[in-house]
Amino acid sequence: MKAEIIAVGSELLLGEIANTNAQYLSEWLATCGIDVYYHTVVGDNRERMTDVIRRAQGRVDLLVITGGLGPTEDDLTKEVVAELLERSLQIDQPAYDRIEAFLKTRGRTMTNNEKKQALIIEGADVLTNNAGLAPGMSVHTSDHQYILLPGVPREMKRIIADHFDHLLGKETIKSRTLRFFGIGESALNDRLADLIRTARNPSVAPYAELAEVRLRLTAKALDEQTALEMLDRLERQIRDEVGTYFYGYGETSLPEVVLDDCRKAGLTLSAAESLTGGAFASGLTDIKGASDVFRGSAVVYSDVAKINVLGVAQTLLDQQTAVSREVAIAMAEGARALYQTDLAIALTGEAGPTSNSGQTVGTVYCALAQASGTEVLELTYPAFDRGMIRLRSVKDAYFMLIKNINHSDKRIQK
Amino acid sequence: MKAEIIAVGSELLLGEIANTNAQYLSEWLATCGIDVYYHTVVGDNRERMTDVIRRAQGRVDLLVITGGLGPTEDDLTKEVVAELLERSLQIDQPAYDRIEAFLKTRGRTMTNNEKKQALIIEGADVLTNNAGLAPGMSVHTSDHQYILLPGVPREMKRIIADHFDHLLGKETIKSRTLRFFGIGESALNDRLADLIRTARNPSVAPYAELAEVRLRLTAKALDEQTALEMLDRLERQIRDEVGTYFYGYGETSLPEVVLDDCRKAGLTLSAAESLTGGAFASGLTDIKGASDVFRGSAVVYSDVAKINVLGVAQTLLDQQTAVSREVAIAMAEGARALYQTDLAIALTGEAGPTSNSGQTVGTVYCALAQASGTEVLELTYPAFDRGMIRLRSVKDAYFMLIKNINHSDKRIQK
Repeated sequence: MKAEIIAVGSELLLGEIANTNAQYLSEWLATCGIDVYYHTVVGDNRERMTDVIRRAQGRVDLLVITGGLGPTEDDLTKEVVAELLERSLQIDQPAYDRIEAFLKTRGRTMTNNEKKQALIIEGADVLTNNAGLAPGMSVHTSDHQYILLPGVPREMKRIIADHFDHLLGKETIKSRTLRFFGIGESALNDRLADLIRTARNPSVAPYAELAEVRLRLTAKALDEQTALEMLDRLERQIRDEVGTYFYGYGETSLPEVVLDDCRKAGLTLSAAESLTGGAFASGLTDIKGASDVFRGSAVVYSDVAKINVLGVAQTLLDQQTAVSREVAIAMAEGARALYQTDLAIALTGEAGPTSNSGQTVGTVYCALAQASGTEVLELTYPAFDRGMIRLRSVKDAYFMLIKNINHSDKRIQK
Repeated sequence: MKAEIIAVGSELLLGEIANTNAQYLSEWLATCGIDVYYHTVVGDNRERMTDVIRRAQGRVDLLVITGGLGPTEDDLTKEVVAELLERSLQIDQPAYDRIEAFLKTRGRTMTNNEKKQALIIEGADVLTNNAGLAPGMSVHTSDHQYILLPGVPREMKRIIADHFDHLLGKETIKSRTLRFFGIGESALNDRLADLIRTARNPSVAPYAELAEVRLRLTAKALDEQTALEMLDRLERQIRDEVGTYFYGYGETSLPEVVLDDCRKAGLTLSAAESLTGGAFASGLTDIKGASDVFRGSAVVYSDVAKINVLGVAQTLLDQQTAVSREVAIAMAEGARALYQTDLAIALTGEAGPTSNSGQTVGTVYCALAQASGTEVLELTYPAFDRGMIRLRSVKDAYFMLIKNINHSDKRIQK
């Protein structure tokens, strides 16, 4: 099965936004074993849209079309596809009722344009939109399948998520994402080489993200229970091999896991940041509810600050420099006392581009202080990218916390 | 003149990366007054690439093709275009010499694949690549112009920047970006409505970014001097109208301007962050060289931390709550004393989703302490997005600093 992803919208052609929908949909289709051969972007223009869709009909089996389902005059996707298929447009009553109910909460009645959003192509399966007003739809003809989705990424993703199981056929498709930190994509691929090469159903696909790797496992079966059992088995095989790098599922992030694990263990947390300059704290406080675990961070970007705020001794800084194991320990213990927390992380290092401390650029010390004592991780990163050194350091600190709180590897939760 | 942007690369079709190049090129072409009618993505496949380029020849005048200029077997772009144009591929000696020199620094000699990168299409103008090894090229035929660029975004952007003036014709094209904060896109459009509607050369295009707006001014003239004078005149008109919201040019960011302005004025800076949890500090320390201005930030995410770290009085917290004008002042003055800086910013507020302080979600106090006294800005944001409230608060604090350091509006710098 070959697919083309068509995005409709002049804002894309003007460079106002990037076509991130195409990336998302490509990954989804790859997951389901469908080859994407083309992406196309076309403006809100009836003639050019017709031409683009006609060409796609000639070269692929599945057309996924995003955008142009809204209420404005420019929104032409449904009309163009209906005309090409010689089908009519009909009101979908549930969609109509949802629009009416929404407008009622605003004290308004429906205009003709707003009504347009409830129209679906004759014979289409409606894809309920739980994040907006315009539903998506799937249309089958003898030769092709057409999936029409809204252009707003949040709505498009929600529809895919809600209809993932059966959108592409009668089989149930279930997918699960495992997240790993501290192992590169190629090292993970080496460790799992046989599995990745031979796994067809369930399949395994690795995706590298910033200093992380996620594995997407996808199973097809006739019923949900079987698909989930297939995923469980494969997950167990993978975690037996590389479980030590595993930290969570799906869209979970490292700081979310840190906060959850601290919360479950009844532990409070603080930090002292030199190198990372507030990025460790910022990552945690981005997450709502962080304040029941996280008390704060002393960002100390100068020796004076390390001395005044954290009580690091001037003699220690003179003897060891700010980038040293000893200063990392003093910072972590200083933060733990100052913020009165169970755990405290300290990060100090040399991010470059040139070294102020005399230490090699890329050298980082991450200390973790707790009642039982303070331990230090010495990390060495390639020196070429200041931002990357800072980002990796923050993530290494989160991972050090997760490992410390859990001691043994986490169990399969499902 | 009509254009199509063609991106070559199977990694795009697998969803591994988004086609951000197309967005960048679309904005560039819009700036130059060229209409982009289509984006197309195709894999590294000779037959499908040939087909896609042939179709583009039939529907546009300018083909901008990214990707496939590298050294691997998969990199086919030059071969495919040369074959379609019935032209040969020839070694570009300067490009060849650069590759050889680069390999020499690695102690290696050139392989046949690496040599491929120095090939250009017969009769093409070479677009030197100062960020990588494979040059771009521009080919004119009687009906079309073809611009071939590397797929690596950094290299693609560098080539556009270095060849911006004359890549699309004999006229000189000069562009300038003005950055504004504190005014929404629609308000800015209203204030400049006549200018934006009537300006053709130079033209004005607004782009909304996260809580900011930038205006891109573009002038075409027969020589550089004239184009620059046209931009100066238009900039003056715009700044007469909305200069109070202006903060910088081009890719400059608010924290960069804060650091530059402090450096010029010989001022040091610190912060105390509740609401923003380290994001203010992190934005500044992302920039290299921040340490000569910025000493640190006390992230105080609990009352205990406000008391212990900054010396905020328990009675003040009890009487006024943590989200108050008075506590913001105490935090700023506490940070200024602790870090021994000329300036100190404090941020406290209610980011939600629910209110802990009793204050309405979206209420933020931003205090600026300096020798002459402490002033407070009370800000009110819509309550719907926690992340947006934090982000806007950080940017408002940067802007408050810039305005304070400069007092009067900044002069036109060129």
